[in-house]
Amino acid sequence: MISIALLGCGRIGQVHARTIMASKRAKLVAVVDAFESAAAALAAETGAIVYSADKIFADDSIDAVIICTPTDSHAQFIEKAALAGKAVMCEKPFDLSIGRIHKCMETVKKSGIPLMLGFNRRFDPSFANLQARLRAGEIGEIEQVIITSRDPSPPPISYIKHSGGIFADMMIHDIDMLRFLLDEELVDVQAVGSVLIDPEIATVGDFDTAAATLKTATGKICQISCSRRASYGYDQRIEVHGSKGMLRATNIHETTVEIANADGFQSAPLVNFFLERYMPAYLAELEYFIDCIEKSVSPSPSGEDGLKAQIIAEALLEASSIGTTIKIKG
Amino acid sequence: MISIALLGCGRIGQVHARTIMASKRAKLVAVVDAFESAAAALAAETGAIVYSADKIFADDSIDAVIICTPTDSHAQFIEKAALAGKAVMCEKPFDLSIGRIHKCMETVKKSGIPLMLGFNRRFDPSFANLQARLRAGEIGEIEQVIITSRDPSPPPISYIKHSGGIFADMMIHDIDMLRFLLDEELVDVQAVGSVLIDPEIATVGDFDTAAATLKTATGKICQISCSRRASYGYDQRIEVHGSKGMLRATNIHETTVEIANADGFQSAPLVNFFLERYMPAYLAELEYFIDCIEKSVSPSPSGEDGLKAQIIAEALLEASSIGTTIKIKG
Amino acid sequence: MISIALLGCGRIGQVHARTIMASKRAKLVAVVDAFESAAAALAAETGAIVYSADKIFADDSIDAVIICTPTDSHAQFIEKAALAGKAVMCEKPFDLSIGRIHKCMETVKKSGIPLMLGFNRRFDPSFANLQARLRAGEIGEIEQVIITSRDPSPPPISYIKHSGGIFADMMIHDIDMLRFLLDEELVDVQAVGSVLIDPEIATVGDFDTAAATLKTATGKICQISCSRRASYGYDQRIEVHGSKGMLRATNIHETTVEIANADGFQSAPLVNFFLERYMPAYLAELEYFIDCIEKSVSPSPSGEDGLKAQIIAEALLEASSIGTTIKIKG
Amino acid sequence: MISIALLGCGRIGQVHARTIMASKRAKLVAVVDAFESAAAALAAETGAIVYSADKIFADDSIDAVIICTPTDSHAQFIEKAALAGKAVMCEKPFDLSIGRIHKCMETVKKSGIPLMLGFNRRFDPSFANLQARLRAGEIGEIEQVIITSRDPSPPPISYIKHSGGIFADMMIHDIDMLRFLLDEELVDVQAVGSVLIDPEIATVGDFDTAAATLKTATGKICQISCSRRASYGYDQRIEVHGSKGMLRATNIHETTVEIANADGFQSAPLVNFFLERYMPAYLAELEYFIDCIEKSVSPSPSGEDGLKAQIIAEALLEASSIGTTIKIKG
Repeated sequence: MISIALLGCGRIGQVHARTIMASKRAKLVAVVDAFESAAAALAAETGAIVYSADKIFADDSIDAVIICTPTDSHAQFIEKAALAGKAVMCEKPFDLSIGRIHKCMETVKKSGIPLMLGFNRRFDPSFANLQARLRAGEIGEIEQVIITSRDPSPPPISYIKHSGGIFADMMIHDIDMLRFLLDEELVDVQAVGSVLIDPEIATVGDFDTAAATLKTATGKICQISCSRRASYGYDQRIEVHGSKGMLRATNIHETTVEIANADGFQSAPLVNFFLERYMPAYLAELEYFIDCIEKSVSPSPSGEDGLKAQIIAEALLEASSIGTTIKIKG
Repeated sequence: MISIALLGCGRIGQVHARTIMASKRAKLVAVVDAFESAAAALAAETGAIVYSADKIFADDSIDAVIICTPTDSHAQFIEKAALAGKAVMCEKPFDLSIGRIHKCMETVKKSGIPLMLGFNRRFDPSFANLQARLRAGEIGEIEQVIITSRDPSPPPISYIKHSGGIFADMMIHDIDMLRFLLDEELVDVQAVGSVLIDPEIATVGDFDTAAATLKTATGKICQISCSRRASYGYDQRIEVHGSKGMLRATNIHETTVEIANADGFQSAPLVNFFLERYMPAYLAELEYFIDCIEKSVSPSPSGEDGLKAQIIAEALLEASSIGTTIKIKG
Repeated sequence: MISIALLGCGRIGQVHARTIMASKRAKLVAVVDAFESAAAALAAETGAIVYSADKIFADDSIDAVIICTPTDSHAQFIEKAALAGKAVMCEKPFDLSIGRIHKCMETVKKSGIPLMLGFNRRFDPSFANLQARLRAGEIGEIEQVIITSRDPSPPPISYIKHSGGIFADMMIHDIDMLRFLLDEELVDVQAVGSVLIDPEIATVGDFDTAAATLKTATGKICQISCSRRASYGYDQRIEVHGSKGMLRATNIHETTVEIANADGFQSAPLVNFFLERYMPAYLAELEYFIDCIEKSVSPSPSGEDGLKAQIIAEALLEASSIGTTIKIKG
Repeated sequence: MISIALLGCGRIGQVHARTIMASKRAKLVAVVDAFESAAAALAAETGAIVYSADKIFADDSIDAVIICTPTDSHAQFIEKAALAGKAVMCEKPFDLSIGRIHKCMETVKKSGIPLMLGFNRRFDPSFANLQARLRAGEIGEIEQVIITSRDPSPPPISYIKHSGGIFADMMIHDIDMLRFLLDEELVDVQAVGSVLIDPEIATVGDFDTAAATLKTATGKICQISCSRRASYGYDQRIEVHGSKGMLRATNIHETTVEIANADGFQSAPLVNFFLERYMPAYLAELEYFIDCIEKSVSPSPSGEDGLKAQIIAEALLEASSIGTTIKIKG
């Protein structure tokens, strides 16, 4: 039984609390949040105790921490966990500063703790199945990857302001997915962005609609389409073309009900919230994290994966601003 | 080049005229209809000449006739064609009297002419593909066949009155389809009928909604669902379950366009008319008929197939009226 | 918080134990099974205590029982629960003897306890959505209902022997579903059955493949297709035709992944086990049962629903044996 | 009845001959081809006479010409038709030299002849329906357009050598489709290309796999994915996201047949040839061209549309070579 403490009791922290409660192999022992009431509420619901972060890191009975705090505190908490010898699962993005990530990873390496980045979509049953079948060679050599990534609606401006922008906040999931699917690194990237949904998003220097083209050294071509709006639900699709065929994974509808009449055939909207869509992924992600701890295996997605995704997100932002292809350095 | 004369210039006669025009191996030389204006109009459009039926049968340059006249004249025209040594394609149903069919088939047999019954659906590319794959054993032994058969809306009461009823007029297509799909004969039949669409249909002694259950000697079970109403288009589906899997053929939509919004995902209605749905079948049916003539092969569906479908349709009508299983005699 | 005891710790009992564990409004306090080891194992897993049935009924702290024991003990346990004043959820079928059901329901009525029958499919999110939309009039008046019901593979012969036969054991779910969907009672039924999968099933007097046609007083026509075999997974579909359109609910695939190559487009098989397919239904069923207890509402499906489904299942069996339509008495 | 002459009797010329034969409003009077045997064969099949190009332009009884000759002769034949006062439908691309197109269009303008470019996909029933619904505002303001364009397999190297490259030869259809769908011009373009299918394609300086990102002045973002290989058939899809929803048009399968077994559910490959996919589009294109002639309406897609598509194709090629965004000049 792995004892876990949760740093950050916001929306995503509550998701992780729920997965821990559902697991037979883990228990949630402590929670902390800058807003004490949030920590207290989650503690009441789960039976965990409210601790300070320091107490958590000092408590030898705690095996692992899951970091769901604001992005700018991730690196610092990872370092504290490394010093305390605790396994870490950290929500994406690792950090908005690549320098800071490098520094943090040095500490992690020295400590030898398992560090896992929270790219939950790798654990989505359909995406994981697709990736396994790519690896098994079902469609031969990969030629093109096309990812569609659309949220139902934009988050609040207050969130967007500190989000790192659409590439680092939203498209980073798709960047990691590309790296998960491909068997080589991305080397050239192009991007464009627009503000088409909410003009206020422009005032904080961000886009709400974006597209990226990414290429590997051998010429595999990837395209990402990204938007903060999808009236029909949470739209997350992958399509991979290979020398022998195509593999794709699509969306989950709210129900299987369909109505047919003179207007045509209408099926249900997609599940509308990341929780409904990705709950099985979060559950599988935690079980995998526990596996890594129990079997002393280095987790994947790793800190390195978090770093590379951040480097590419930054390159895409730059590419979108200057309009030229950006080379990703090793 | 096969010279064909057309008996009957109504809706279905016009369909056959069109297929003959489209074929490189046939020409439409003569047409006849009880309504002279109908014959004249079709002649003008196609370049055929208007003849009497007698002239058609007397004209040695005519190789074949397609009979699209009212049902009660089918047998008589088939017999005339038999005596004149002309190949015949006759629209379904053969005749509403089983005795009359038997008598007609004697004449046909003596003459040796090729007689083909117009069960066009056997030539639908999807249904034909499904049948071929059944025969190839793709799903092992057939266990259940489920046919859905729904017209967009009921024909006029004047038509229904002389149609022979829903079993002989509409479900006869599905009966023939079952016989086409199965590799053994149907032996037990049950049926129910209702009037749910238009009460006037009850006044002429017919149903507008019906269901049948049919069984073979080895216990294969078939179900047909039939209705004169389908707001979403012409609905013709086949589903066959076998020991190793399921094969099904579904419908064709008007376009491939789909709209998604908060109400869900809506695709187009089905093509709404038997012509749009079955034009490829009619074209293939004619080419096959020409093949049979050129290669002196007995056509299938044959007169025998027309007879057996009629026997089953009659049995279903009786079953629906007395509420017991009816045995089909060999 | 509702305290629940579980009678019967077999496959379906374990499902209910799991739903109770997942609920925030219920706790599993006691379990009993004829096989003590089964009860002990489930107790160990859930923290419940192993009790005798008598102790359960004698324990005033227990609010409700869920009965998952073999069918022939259902009525007796319901009666004991009634005398003890405990709410009951009882697995289907109620009892294989209609006389026994009547007698049991008298005791229930006198006691005033809430009695709910475990027709879990009414709580399937898609089926429930379909039914709600029927009631809302989305497709006007119901004309035809077509239900497909196929298990992946037959249960062991030992189970089939005491199952009551395909109509009472398997098709009873579909009968209840028809009664749930329709707004009037079924009055006429026809059925056929075959043994096509395993000849041994014939030796115990049962079918493995069956079809039924059922009619309401106003002529609505229902068809059920039932088989103990479906190589592609657990196949449960509903299709309802109405005066204004069609509503249908289909199946859930294992993943959303699709592969395309020269052979075509292949999607995943259906989820292959009733647990995967119906877990959301079992969870919703329990929450509804708790609602009924908390709000003192009579549950639906009720004992009466259990009785009526059994009457129809029996009539279908008779119809399949004598080949005539059977009338259902009020 | 419009009298049409056909210049060029290759694959696409034969398609147009077939559409003319099928039309009730046009007749094919003359054909010409550099390979006399090709012209003779088509003449024999259609009843047209073999003429020289000069004779065609000199013959006053000929109303219109359809130009299907190699690209480098298009402009010259259009000019001859302009001088002769004949309506022209010219296959894409207009010409590989933008200067040459400008010069040709001056002649056309002076003459006042109707000039239509053969972007047949605008007439595909599904794509046309999608475009009409965009214009009708069904999904509000367009935000993103995603086009998938995959041929079953690469053409011969001999063809590729003179094709103008993947952008001008293949993606030009998609560029025109974007211009057809959007209500404003494309202003910024990015592109990448790779050789992943056949290394010989690299030796003639072309790509076999490409992707483009195009933007309008108001920030609408378009992505095209293009490949010379698709093992599952001819893959042509459009997906448009707007402020109120999404509209998409997908592909046509060879049949509607689906097989289900333990491997999953498999439907048929896509129709595998541009003729099967686009025959309805070619038929509609011709009828529209005849409409334009009869009603003296300027056709659309026009010569201007041919010019603009060529400008964008050229910009994409440049963008793919230098890796920066290229601005499209008015």
